[in-house]
Amino acid sequence: MTRLRMGMVGGGPGAFIGPVHRIAAELDGEIALVAGVFSSDAGRSRAAAGSYRIDPERAYGSLDEMLAAERARADGIDFVAVVTPNHNHLPSARAALRAGLPVICDKPLTATLAEAHELAAVVAETGLPFAVTHTYSGYPLVREARARVAAGALGIVRKVVVEYPQGWLAGEASGKQAEWRVDPARAGLGGCIGDIGVHAFQLAEFITGLEVTELLADLGAVVPGRRLDDDCTVLLRFANGARGVLLASQIEVGELNGLRIRLYGDRGGLVWRQEQPNTLTLHTLDGRTEVVHAGGPQLGPDAASRTRTPTGHPEGYLEAFANLYRDFAAVLRGEEAPLLPGIATGLRGMAFIATAVEASRARAGWVPLTV
Amino acid sequence: MTRLRMGMVGGGPGAFIGPVHRIAAELDGEIALVAGVFSSDAGRSRAAAGSYRIDPERAYGSLDEMLAAERARADGIDFVAVVTPNHNHLPSARAALRAGLPVICDKPLTATLAEAHELAAVVAETGLPFAVTHTYSGYPLVREARARVAAGALGIVRKVVVEYPQGWLAGEASGKQAEWRVDPARAGLGGCIGDIGVHAFQLAEFITGLEVTELLADLGAVVPGRRLDDDCTVLLRFANGARGVLLASQIEVGELNGLRIRLYGDRGGLVWRQEQPNTLTLHTLDGRTEVVHAGGPQLGPDAASRTRTPTGHPEGYLEAFANLYRDFAAVLRGEEAPLLPGIATGLRGMAFIATAVEASRARAGWVPLTV
Amino acid sequence: MTRLRMGMVGGGPGAFIGPVHRIAAELDGEIALVAGVFSSDAGRSRAAAGSYRIDPERAYGSLDEMLAAERARADGIDFVAVVTPNHNHLPSARAALRAGLPVICDKPLTATLAEAHELAAVVAETGLPFAVTHTYSGYPLVREARARVAAGALGIVRKVVVEYPQGWLAGEASGKQAEWRVDPARAGLGGCIGDIGVHAFQLAEFITGLEVTELLADLGAVVPGRRLDDDCTVLLRFANGARGVLLASQIEVGELNGLRIRLYGDRGGLVWRQEQPNTLTLHTLDGRTEVVHAGGPQLGPDAASRTRTPTGHPEGYLEAFANLYRDFAAVLRGEEAPLLPGIATGLRGMAFIATAVEASRARAGWVPLTV
Amino acid sequence: MTRLRMGMVGGGPGAFIGPVHRIAAELDGEIALVAGVFSSDAGRSRAAAGSYRIDPERAYGSLDEMLAAERARADGIDFVAVVTPNHNHLPSARAALRAGLPVICDKPLTATLAEAHELAAVVAETGLPFAVTHTYSGYPLVREARARVAAGALGIVRKVVVEYPQGWLAGEASGKQAEWRVDPARAGLGGCIGDIGVHAFQLAEFITGLEVTELLADLGAVVPGRRLDDDCTVLLRFANGARGVLLASQIEVGELNGLRIRLYGDRGGLVWRQEQPNTLTLHTLDGRTEVVHAGGPQLGPDAASRTRTPTGHPEGYLEAFANLYRDFAAVLRGEEAPLLPGIATGLRGMAFIATAVEASRARAGWVPLTV
Repeated sequence: MTRLRMGMVGGGPGAFIGPVHRIAAELDGEIALVAGVFSSDAGRSRAAAGSYRIDPERAYGSLDEMLAAERARADGIDFVAVVTPNHNHLPSARAALRAGLPVICDKPLTATLAEAHELAAVVAETGLPFAVTHTYSGYPLVREARARVAAGALGIVRKVVVEYPQGWLAGEASGKQAEWRVDPARAGLGGCIGDIGVHAFQLAEFITGLEVTELLADLGAVVPGRRLDDDCTVLLRFANGARGVLLASQIEVGELNGLRIRLYGDRGGLVWRQEQPNTLTLHTLDGRTEVVHAGGPQLGPDAASRTRTPTGHPEGYLEAFANLYRDFAAVLRGEEAPLLPGIATGLRGMAFIATAVEASRARAGWVPLTV
Repeated sequence: MTRLRMGMVGGGPGAFIGPVHRIAAELDGEIALVAGVFSSDAGRSRAAAGSYRIDPERAYGSLDEMLAAERARADGIDFVAVVTPNHNHLPSARAALRAGLPVICDKPLTATLAEAHELAAVVAETGLPFAVTHTYSGYPLVREARARVAAGALGIVRKVVVEYPQGWLAGEASGKQAEWRVDPARAGLGGCIGDIGVHAFQLAEFITGLEVTELLADLGAVVPGRRLDDDCTVLLRFANGARGVLLASQIEVGELNGLRIRLYGDRGGLVWRQEQPNTLTLHTLDGRTEVVHAGGPQLGPDAASRTRTPTGHPEGYLEAFANLYRDFAAVLRGEEAPLLPGIATGLRGMAFIATAVEASRARAGWVPLTV
Repeated sequence: MTRLRMGMVGGGPGAFIGPVHRIAAELDGEIALVAGVFSSDAGRSRAAAGSYRIDPERAYGSLDEMLAAERARADGIDFVAVVTPNHNHLPSARAALRAGLPVICDKPLTATLAEAHELAAVVAETGLPFAVTHTYSGYPLVREARARVAAGALGIVRKVVVEYPQGWLAGEASGKQAEWRVDPARAGLGGCIGDIGVHAFQLAEFITGLEVTELLADLGAVVPGRRLDDDCTVLLRFANGARGVLLASQIEVGELNGLRIRLYGDRGGLVWRQEQPNTLTLHTLDGRTEVVHAGGPQLGPDAASRTRTPTGHPEGYLEAFANLYRDFAAVLRGEEAPLLPGIATGLRGMAFIATAVEASRARAGWVPLTV
Repeated sequence: MTRLRMGMVGGGPGAFIGPVHRIAAELDGEIALVAGVFSSDAGRSRAAAGSYRIDPERAYGSLDEMLAAERARADGIDFVAVVTPNHNHLPSARAALRAGLPVICDKPLTATLAEAHELAAVVAETGLPFAVTHTYSGYPLVREARARVAAGALGIVRKVVVEYPQGWLAGEASGKQAEWRVDPARAGLGGCIGDIGVHAFQLAEFITGLEVTELLADLGAVVPGRRLDDDCTVLLRFANGARGVLLASQIEVGELNGLRIRLYGDRGGLVWRQEQPNTLTLHTLDGRTEVVHAGGPQLGPDAASRTRTPTGHPEGYLEAFANLYRDFAAVLRGEEAPLLPGIATGLRGMAFIATAVEASRARAGWVPLTV
């Protein structure tokens, strides 16, 4: 059983998400990072090879170069991970797919909805595996939550509150991570809504198993001079009529990475928080509260199979991320991984972003959400 | 220093809020409950006298009767507490004021905005003290939060998220407490928005010191057959342009009495939760988090003077409520109590309820909030 | 139904516990403070009458004076509350009992074990009601914990960890509250062990329903110059062989009033914390965790009958204290209140203090605990 | 920069800690598992190669075989990780060291103190790098805590409370993980004290920078029929006179992996909990409480350099473990890693275990702790 060989696009010096993808991909020993276009500057790309401890010969200055060179090797890459800023998702993914390689791509899918549709067409046309790294749906207790809802623990879902507060962009956006996120040329049409709002949206649909059919959006650019939204309120209606609220912000000083979700049905309620990801709280209509622990005996197979340590030994963000790569590896081996977010999820996310941005700009009130 | 003598209207058998008012009023030894119209049925009113341990002779069957009989006594009541369902607030308060007695009244102020204006006119005309029991603004750390914001700890307030989740009306509304709250004839025009949403609204204006100038409301009646709203989302704009979100619900299974508020400015953030009322969390833009403890040495005078126990000895809902009565007693003695919610606060609350209900019904989008 | 009339000994200017007793006694409307010896200085005692809002004529300069004067009144006091520093417990309680009045007394029972035995003899001889205010056993969820253990929720209790950390005496002991507690002449033979260790001891025996039969004590005086212990470690053995650990400290900087207890049996575990008193956590051997909420529907009668507000409306220290007074009032009315700590509990507490102090001084290892 | 090549001893089918070592070693891309003696049964060892995704040729049936075969390879292993039950630590580590290979070994160091001394002699004699995986000292905020204490944030340390509660051995010990831990032949002289008590001991010395000089131990075997301790109370004295309490238990039903430590000095206090490892709470004598977040700007270099994700993205047990391997890799490269637990730490741990077991058995009271 050799490891699957990964080529990365993006993740150069100063990047946060590149090393995260590397760790996540390799965590379970099924994948190895062996090549990359870590920068469009060939010298910088090569320099990055050292920090990733790969052969500098396999650090390329362009995707085309990587695709050609790796194709020529017996041990060439098996798939491509796209971890660039948003505006490069489409060209990178498209090229890799057209070269016959499966792709795992960071979120949001692309910079615009039109690009997303184009990418979806390429995925359909090539028939190759494609995944979007909605990290938070990789947490074991998020999968447990989904399973409990599907099993009827809450009864009919009536209400969803999903929040994603951060504070790191409350001041001036400086540093590599911040700068591209507030720049429409690189981030695309959404600021906060595209960076984190889309995670919240995906989490809500993932856990409920319900699609959002209508929304009302109020996006603001709070920090003076900011050109993209940094504070978002979106009201939701789900396909079954359930009411929802999605809050995302990057100007809430003191909030770290506070993604959390609460769901309520006619028979129960459920709460999960990313910053304390190893507990899930369940409520019943008759007043009982149960705390479910990651790694504990109450977990169903989706959660249990994606946990590596005994209960009480906290797993976190990297392990959740690794669960997506484990799913992706399974798909590459020809197995099923129904919980892995794919092109349809990515497309829904872009539709959400585009619809919210446009509806907010137009002060349009409730609008349908269609892909 | 004799105790001020209180006459209560409402609070008969099965009532929750009557005994709470009694305890709160008497907690600091400045007030004594001595008379009441605990029920419009004279026999039931008299029966209640026992549970309140007052002289049964002073348990009356009507307010007129109480006002007349007490006026005739040397030790007659000094003020009236109105603790009935909402539809009786106006007639009770009006009669007491016209009889020359100060009034402390439960929230919301009245059943309709028109009634609120009428009551405001009576208060203005009589010039008598009048208070509305927005309990949560009596918590010491809420007052500390207000003082910190006023002192600039957050810089310019940019964002407010205030939530009031409950779950007790997720099923069928049964029992004395539930039944009147879902009945328009007794609750007035608001369900959840009037019962708890208005608390959240008052808390947000109280702590920020800012008025809400616009809102967008989406109220729902989730439980089948419910005639009043039981789940509310309201977007807010404050006078300084700050963005706000107000969530209130009574169908969120497992939520108890989860009022909480988070505020963010350009220099800091602040979080307070009613269910753990004795800590206040403060954040600064440079990444520091401080936890302030009730009773601790960091408190300003507003909070310190309204705390009765050393730090670590939890005070709760009854003590917060008692702080309003202590303020009210101060006013009756001719002192100032600027933090006590009065008629203007009550009127703003009713304007909020009426505006939200109407705007939601009309799907009106953003509307101005004016009193 | 008139209120029982209370006379207080202690609680003069600067006292913390006097006003707490007043509030707790009056909270449920069954008792009224009407007289007191608030200071042995008649003028200061009279001055205190104002803050308690009682008739200054009934603020006395000595207990003998109060007993005599009150006996002469038709509306004289029905019982005496002793809230002085420890060295005055015996003389005050003895005099009141000998005057035919029931007594409720702060903890620890007396300054020495010999005094405790003398007081027990007086109680036995007079046959009058006598209670010790072990406040924490008044919390509803402590009573729920006791009921659950008694009902077998944990199986056989094997292990108890009870902790009472405070930090307020980590520096120099200054101020009225601190000074007498570190002075052997007023505090008696125990410092921290007598001030708070005894609460932890009582809580452990109260919830488990088991007596401690052996202990090993290691008491330290950490702050330079301190003459009484301020940091205590005590190992316990219970009558059924269960192992226990009792930690109490007043030099743990940042700890407020952190009393907490954890119990483990062969079938389950249980955790309660005073600073968040409205939840009780239960664990089962098969890995389930349940959170029980004060005021919620899962409570048994002991807890439910001692709760005044709906779930989610926090009650705290004063309400717990009031539950002891409610029990005491019940006893005075001739009813049973089996959970109210009485003379036997007080005597056990003094035996615990005396045994621990002596065993620690002698580095005696394990010693039996006998009353 | 090629990866260091690791050979593992232990970690066969059903093992928990083997895969953990593999993930931790490889997490930062500096080390690769390439060979192993996963079982003393050659067939089982080879079968395990698949789950580790290594070349089956390099899965050996004995350590001697591995050492010989790997020595013969150009790409032979650079070091050995010993992850067997305790009784195999000495023979495995000794053989590897004598073969000229550095060793990283699970804790406790050996099965007996005599073995520990023998191993220490071998380490001294060979002069090769040697580390013991006291995982918890790898957490970034544990390192921050150590740095803060060293910098005087607490003043003079006076008191340490370290607890390590678990509940998983409260019932019958079944399954591969449980069985060897309760078997003296494989676990050595300590049960709970050796399995987790020694972690608590090491954590206390690590953070305080102080050595324990005396202890008083009370170890119990609570579960009927258990031959080794499963519940431990140990009183500690540190070199500077500070008082300490160490509690460890494996029969506390509902406790998962609840390692936590609280330290108090004359100027401040500090609290850290393994189950919520990404916050550290600091208290000051003047009543301030600060919460420090992993990944946040307040961290010193020891913590910051051992964090991989931005604040709010939880890291956990595997990342803490990886920090030890990162330190070990640094040592192998010839760099300094002063925080990495080495042979001296391992030896102190064994002295702690042996002293506690013997002192408890003899009911010896306070005894010196010497290595």
